[in-house]
Amino acid sequence: MTHADPYAFSVEALRSRRTTKWHKFDPDVLPAWVADMDFGVAPPVLEALQKLIDAEEFGYSDRGGALEAAFVRRMLRRFGWETHAADVHPIGDLVQASFAAVTAFSEPGDGVVLQLPSYPPFQDAITGTGRRIVANPMRRDGKGWRLDLGAFDANPDPKAKVLIFCHPQNPTGRAFTEAELAEVAAFAVRHDLVVVSDEIHADILYDGRRHRPLASMGPEIAARTLTITSATKGYNIPALRTAAIHFGSPALRQRFFARLPAKLLGFPSVMGIDATVAAWDAGDPWFAETLARLEANRDYLARAIPEALPGAVFLPPEATYLAWIDCAALDLGMPAQQFFLERARVGLNAGETFGSGYDACVRLNFATTPAILQEIVGRMADAVRQR
Amino acid sequence: MTHADPYAFSVEALRSRRTTKWHKFDPDVLPAWVADMDFGVAPPVLEALQKLIDAEEFGYSDRGGALEAAFVRRMLRRFGWETHAADVHPIGDLVQASFAAVTAFSEPGDGVVLQLPSYPPFQDAITGTGRRIVANPMRRDGKGWRLDLGAFDANPDPKAKVLIFCHPQNPTGRAFTEAELAEVAAFAVRHDLVVVSDEIHADILYDGRRHRPLASMGPEIAARTLTITSATKGYNIPALRTAAIHFGSPALRQRFFARLPAKLLGFPSVMGIDATVAAWDAGDPWFAETLARLEANRDYLARAIPEALPGAVFLPPEATYLAWIDCAALDLGMPAQQFFLERARVGLNAGETFGSGYDACVRLNFATTPAILQEIVGRMADAVRQR
Repeated sequence: MTHADPYAFSVEALRSRRTTKWHKFDPDVLPAWVADMDFGVAPPVLEALQKLIDAEEFGYSDRGGALEAAFVRRMLRRFGWETHAADVHPIGDLVQASFAAVTAFSEPGDGVVLQLPSYPPFQDAITGTGRRIVANPMRRDGKGWRLDLGAFDANPDPKAKVLIFCHPQNPTGRAFTEAELAEVAAFAVRHDLVVVSDEIHADILYDGRRHRPLASMGPEIAARTLTITSATKGYNIPALRTAAIHFGSPALRQRFFARLPAKLLGFPSVMGIDATVAAWDAGDPWFAETLARLEANRDYLARAIPEALPGAVFLPPEATYLAWIDCAALDLGMPAQQFFLERARVGLNAGETFGSGYDACVRLNFATTPAILQEIVGRMADAVRQR
Repeated sequence: MTHADPYAFSVEALRSRRTTKWHKFDPDVLPAWVADMDFGVAPPVLEALQKLIDAEEFGYSDRGGALEAAFVRRMLRRFGWETHAADVHPIGDLVQASFAAVTAFSEPGDGVVLQLPSYPPFQDAITGTGRRIVANPMRRDGKGWRLDLGAFDANPDPKAKVLIFCHPQNPTGRAFTEAELAEVAAFAVRHDLVVVSDEIHADILYDGRRHRPLASMGPEIAARTLTITSATKGYNIPALRTAAIHFGSPALRQRFFARLPAKLLGFPSVMGIDATVAAWDAGDPWFAETLARLEANRDYLARAIPEALPGAVFLPPEATYLAWIDCAALDLGMPAQQFFLERARVGLNAGETFGSGYDACVRLNFATTPAILQEIVGRMADAVRQR
């Protein structure tokens, strides 16, 4: 069959998709929240899935380690990171992986260090397993968001066992530098923390940046790091629920599975595995095109937001298709997400779900068409003007 | 596209599928082991999956409880069992569900009652979580396989907390009668056991039988029963890894999730959910045709096995597409699975993986074409004749 231009879906076409993004809010609201893209998917992914349908091939298969092998090829080719298939374990999604890692490497009552603002499910992975969030807020200086590891050093929590590190960072869009990663590595060693490094946005870096996996910073940090990643963000296939955990040492893997039997965690579907392998092995051309469009959208926001929302603080992201916008200076009179939902009919992520104290912030997903993005910014600008 | 006759795949076409079934053994071996079917899948399933590909629709979605609602409709229409969507929880597969249930309702060192012979992963779910198998072997009388609950009554294990009950039973193919289910229910209450009732083969009953869910036997047994099921067996879609847990009471559900956060267990893919809903809601015509073919195969085996394997004990199953064949009287000189693999080039499941003492038994999956099934039986007969 012929597919429409996968970068030019209309609002009507997008709303006809049965996705959560397009059906959470009323029909007159333009959604720009949950992190999937209003685009299509890579042709090799469609071909891999079509092949299964054409052969009516839905019997048992673990694909004999195909996902693990594709992970190893991908990490080496894209990031220069040498890994081994035996250290890779397939899992459904990164939220599941973070729940599993917190469960495996800490006890109820222990602390888990988490930079704020933070992707909300990581907070759930801590509180939902009876652990405590040890909040480590990032600081914003004139140039951007900075880690503030010294704040924990000055006031360490002796029962902190795990650091959930998000790199590139969601929602601030920071792609941490090698110097910063070296600091994180030393910090984790110094405080004897197991690190869960969420690198799901590793593909989506702008301005020619290349992602540097935390675990590639050296054997000492690798030995205590679980890298969790997936093709779902870069290749727009979260529905397929396929991800991978990389254990930075066999001992770490052993500790994990001593606490959690692998079969308790399930296994991705064959469709998810085949799609992921196709994306990682053959999806580069599609992704390059997609990244260019995302970067153009980011550049548009960098120009448009200061004019549309005068006084708001928006630091254009180095990575991810997420814009974190601080509207505190706009005096909206209510949480920013609520304001834009009610007055602009734009559905954003609420800042307060990323940590307390962020209710003046919103997260805007800009992985959409230029036409929709301009309409979103226009509506927000009008609402702010008319407040 | 046009699909081939989904009941007449050739050996070559089946081997071109990348399934575990067709690639575990050497190419000259005919496989008849792992429980999926050498058939296609229901047209509504293919249509549901094709729709996702055509729309390139792979964004986040939990389908808003569609699986749970389809479960409720299915159980009522097919088994006359009234359930509520709020008691249903989607999960990846039944092995995961059994690991989760054992983890949630017992402690390491506790006992889990299990009828033997047993589907091997249920043994894993007990030993892999540090629990003890409390073996409760079934007895074979002249008419068939019987439960032997009295053996446990006579020698109860005070630390037994859970019963894993398989109904219809894999591998014996028993579909338990209402009288037997009433005995199981009373047994579970008497010994205060939580019951994990695997009813994944509930669709595949022969001779006009209708499945009776254990939890439908009354509120007392329901309140302690997790029914685990899936469309994967009846509709030949195990690759999609989608199943459901039904909790027979809100209290049971609450106890489960107090031990295991839902997000630790992950969530099925959208493809799995859409395929399952399509199978359960619109797959009856395809399934009726499939069941007729399975029943014809079973009838063929009932005639052919006594002649092919004189002395072997084969009680034609009332349910499932699995034949459990006891070859003890054949004096094969080695485990039966090994004999038929080496001498007949037929790949069966080894009896000894279903419990110790069953090495003279094999499990034969007869969900294949008549031509392949006849070839399998012919090879087995030749090997036995020539031993």
